[in-house]
Amino acid sequence: MNVSSVRHAVVIGTGLVGTSIALALRNAGVHVGLHDRDDDAVAMAVELGAGVAAGPEDPPADVVVIATPPSTVVGVLCEAQACGLGAVYTDVASTKERIVADVERAGADLASYVPGHPIAGGELSGPTGARADLFVGRPWALCPSQATSLAAVLGVIELVKACRAVPKTLPPDAHDRVLALVSHVPHVVSAVLAARFADADAGTLSWVGKGLRDTTRIAAGDPDLWCDILRHNAPAVAEELESVLLDMADAVRALRMTTGTGPPRAAGLVELLAKGNQGRDNIVSPQEHRRAA
Amino acid sequence: MNVSSVRHAVVIGTGLVGTSIALALRNAGVHVGLHDRDDDAVAMAVELGAGVAAGPEDPPADVVVIATPPSTVVGVLCEAQACGLGAVYTDVASTKERIVADVERAGADLASYVPGHPIAGGELSGPTGARADLFVGRPWALCPSQATSLAAVLGVIELVKACRAVPKTLPPDAHDRVLALVSHVPHVVSAVLAARFADADAGTLSWVGKGLRDTTRIAAGDPDLWCDILRHNAPAVAEELESVLLDMADAVRALRMTTGTGPPRAAGLVELLAKGNQGRDNIVSPQEHRRAA
Repeated sequence: MNVSSVRHAVVIGTGLVGTSIALALRNAGVHVGLHDRDDDAVAMAVELGAGVAAGPEDPPADVVVIATPPSTVVGVLCEAQACGLGAVYTDVASTKERIVADVERAGADLASYVPGHPIAGGELSGPTGARADLFVGRPWALCPSQATSLAAVLGVIELVKACRAVPKTLPPDAHDRVLALVSHVPHVVSAVLAARFADADAGTLSWVGKGLRDTTRIAAGDPDLWCDILRHNAPAVAEELESVLLDMADAVRALRMTTGTGPPRAAGLVELLAKGNQGRDNIVSPQEHRRAA
Repeated sequence: MNVSSVRHAVVIGTGLVGTSIALALRNAGVHVGLHDRDDDAVAMAVELGAGVAAGPEDPPADVVVIATPPSTVVGVLCEAQACGLGAVYTDVASTKERIVADVERAGADLASYVPGHPIAGGELSGPTGARADLFVGRPWALCPSQATSLAAVLGVIELVKACRAVPKTLPPDAHDRVLALVSHVPHVVSAVLAARFADADAGTLSWVGKGLRDTTRIAAGDPDLWCDILRHNAPAVAEELESVLLDMADAVRALRMTTGTGPPRAAGLVELLAKGNQGRDNIVSPQEHRRAA
């Protein structure tokens, strides 16, 4: 089924997200050309049915998806536009404000570029972790500016819908603040927790249960990619992480005040745990409601 | 199938863990009497097939399982021993050192008491979350002292095996240190992270993904029970939490040093994330090996 005006797409970067987009587009009947600086990654994505290796003689695509790490997006966009690789361009980076500023500074064509970010992923990296249904029902952020053409926005919305995701527009700074909260800070916290086990012995590890496994799942993410994401969103992540740190320092203080035999004094601890309950309820409730609906 | 010398058990406290033990014992053909200060919880556990309500005229049980919060274990044990409720006693509390010290101080019979802790649970509370297979293949800590009789230890090992768990003995202080690391600190970290969403609006919550859901799952645990656990293991939890806090402060410092346009300086950040990868590998590998074996 091809219900969209996007008939030909190019995906640059056949990692987990790029290959998943390519697979979803293939399922929607879109012709997909694949680019990656690593030929093996392209070959593997082709083998998975994500499309064909893009060639220099290919006609311009309807949409070009830049699925490379944040710090490379601007360079790849400028190069792709210079080659006339497509009519419309978008990216999938987890940070938006600095990329948008750098794209302007680099003198790229702003009319044809729609900054984007699908809110889906996984702790695996590379094409082998890719799934055609990765984006189904998930929000996909789009951060067009005044300079973005309506045609470009509509083209990328078609692409998002072909991936069965839900397009949502918001300003780049709002995107980066909310992503710091729901994704970037949890990643750092999970990594710090997992790092305590970097040198753990077999005896200690034999006591590990599901709780620790769940809290550290996202710590498996690629360190270079995540360092790039965190650096790109450094001010928002630092601010939010500092709030987490202060709450934790309060918990340590409360525990230090608790004595082994005296009355149980741990001011604020039960309140913090109750607030955690409330936050957890909020985190799962929209999902549960959606499922029930 | 009743392969054990445990033919009659009493479970005091029909919460998630107590009821799960009762269900597992019932499956192993053990007669189970149930106690709880909340009659409704007993009725619900009986309805789930976890046993019968224990009566004052019941003969002494082979093993009495005290499945109440840490701070109540000593009182319940003394009372149960005074009533002659059973031949052997054990508990399931997540902390051991302070309980063992308090049991001695309270003048309880040490010979018949085996401090215990099954390493399994869930974020739900109450009998409705109980499962007969909760302990299958999971470690179950036993912390007998010099004063514990061999018969008591053997009796509790039979009970653990009837629940299809793996008994592992270790000293109370070693138990508390490893549990701080694998369970208590992750709980605080998860709660602190979830607490950031206690007042989150629907707009923010619409961006939540699987990563945040996984990292905050255990934050749904009962605040009073968890406050009790954390207070009981305060020194070990505080010390370990402080190490987590220092790593996080390093991350904040590295992010603060990163400037929007300058060269990417984030000393130590990629190393921390890589250490997180290594820790995560360790956390999942024994499990994967076990599954593959």
